[in-house]
Amino acid sequence: MKVLRTVAEVRQWRTSAGTVGLVPTMGALHDGHAALVERARGENDAAIASIFVNPTQFGPGEDFAAYPRSEDADLALLETHDAAAAFVPSAEEIYPPGDDTRVMPGKIAETLEGAARPGHFTGVATVVAKLLAIVTPDRAYFGQKDFQQLRIIQTIARDLRLAARIVGCPIVRGPDGLALSSRNAYLSDVERATATALSRGLMAAERAFESGRRDADDLRSLVSAELEVWGLSAEYISCADPVTLQELSGPVDRAVLSLAARVGKARLIDNALLGIRLQDLDQL
Amino acid sequence: MKVLRTVAEVRQWRTSAGTVGLVPTMGALHDGHAALVERARGENDAAIASIFVNPTQFGPGEDFAAYPRSEDADLALLETHDAAAAFVPSAEEIYPPGDDTRVMPGKIAETLEGAARPGHFTGVATVVAKLLAIVTPDRAYFGQKDFQQLRIIQTIARDLRLAARIVGCPIVRGPDGLALSSRNAYLSDVERATATALSRGLMAAERAFESGRRDADDLRSLVSAELEVWGLSAEYISCADPVTLQELSGPVDRAVLSLAARVGKARLIDNALLGIRLQDLDQL
Repeated sequence: MKVLRTVAEVRQWRTSAGTVGLVPTMGALHDGHAALVERARGENDAAIASIFVNPTQFGPGEDFAAYPRSEDADLALLETHDAAAAFVPSAEEIYPPGDDTRVMPGKIAETLEGAARPGHFTGVATVVAKLLAIVTPDRAYFGQKDFQQLRIIQTIARDLRLAARIVGCPIVRGPDGLALSSRNAYLSDVERATATALSRGLMAAERAFESGRRDADDLRSLVSAELEVWGLSAEYISCADPVTLQELSGPVDRAVLSLAARVGKARLIDNALLGIRLQDLDQL
Repeated sequence: MKVLRTVAEVRQWRTSAGTVGLVPTMGALHDGHAALVERARGENDAAIASIFVNPTQFGPGEDFAAYPRSEDADLALLETHDAAAAFVPSAEEIYPPGDDTRVMPGKIAETLEGAARPGHFTGVATVVAKLLAIVTPDRAYFGQKDFQQLRIIQTIARDLRLAARIVGCPIVRGPDGLALSSRNAYLSDVERATATALSRGLMAAERAFESGRRDADDLRSLVSAELEVWGLSAEYISCADPVTLQELSGPVDRAVLSLAARVGKARLIDNALLGIRLQDLDQL
């Protein structure tokens, strides 16, 4: 596996790589990332993962400094899963001196995580636009776990007429149901047990939806009821349009149920798609 | 010459075009555009010009509806100058349903034309980002006449890590010195004679700079003196850093002298580079 550190090295590598699948990451890789790399490898001649803890997507009080970093283990994981290359740039390589351009994702970024974390999605959109311009992949792979992020990147790729297809991949969960996340490293054993309420709440609502419950408020309530049992209070529990991320009310045909909650030091998110498949969201 | 109307047609054409030089235009082509096409043709296997009157770069009171449109004559001119293709998209092809993403150029877009025309450069940056993503040229060509625009596009290309080189080309002037512009079509014969004061003022300041006058205020005054003789008052006369477009004071080593003035119905701009060459600005 090639470890590339500069834009010039990536461009050079790209010329003979064939079709390429890009997996943008912030490192601290887990089985969720591994699934993205496997998918990228299966659908393209070569998979490349980027490892870059992007400063512009962290707010002032957030965990940029504390965010887990484990480059050696990350590179070993990528090699195990047959990535052809890893792109591990310095901050200056991504944000050159004088850098002042930002990609603004519009209304889809104003709700949910965008409301909770002002500026977060401008940072995400900007760094992903740069990575897509550097690598020029045929496809780029993002996890459903950060569902609003996935939809924002799909929307930006559509609007900016990027050639890359933005592929969403299902959430990978631990045996206890907790969605894999680099931030799970912040959890104690007790906190981790508590955190499993998030996925149980979403699954309860999903089962209810499948057996005919359609009211957005009802579905949200089913999630919050499970959280309350465990003494968790969510930052938000949302039942939103899965294309535009605008909040829904009344009966819903298709929706994304999503939530954010603090468990100990960790701020966790999770979601479930109702009435629509992940693969139907690309290019909507 | 191929006339391409859709993104898909451009992508198809691009696969066998070799190295490509893009000339983005709003149509109403004149000899200034012809010079860009000739340059693009000389430096690449194929030249492609886009013709698109971009709605998002016009403000509410501006001349979007009145902007001159002459597609047949434009295509004939491009054919004469050996463009391999013209890209003439509909608004929907550039701004697909739901479009809401914008490219924000930062501080360099806040002064001069950016101050006079709020939102203008966000529209320019966004449409150029789309055109660069659609065509993926090796080089894109912009006239020095819209100098702040040129610098903004160069800055965006640097910041977003676009592969295309952004090439600035010298202002083309009429025999009377007036910078060629599609908006010159708005001028009566008398207004046109008056408008020549703009370039005369800039040339006077340029000669003074070359003979050792270095004070930013002095240089601005030389321009405004010439305008006053002809009863013109400028919207601005600027002596700015040619890289960042920030206004200068005191003695200057290098600068861009620029101005905007209304002559009849036309709002005209012009500029002169002092102490720096156009070709030295790429990638700064």
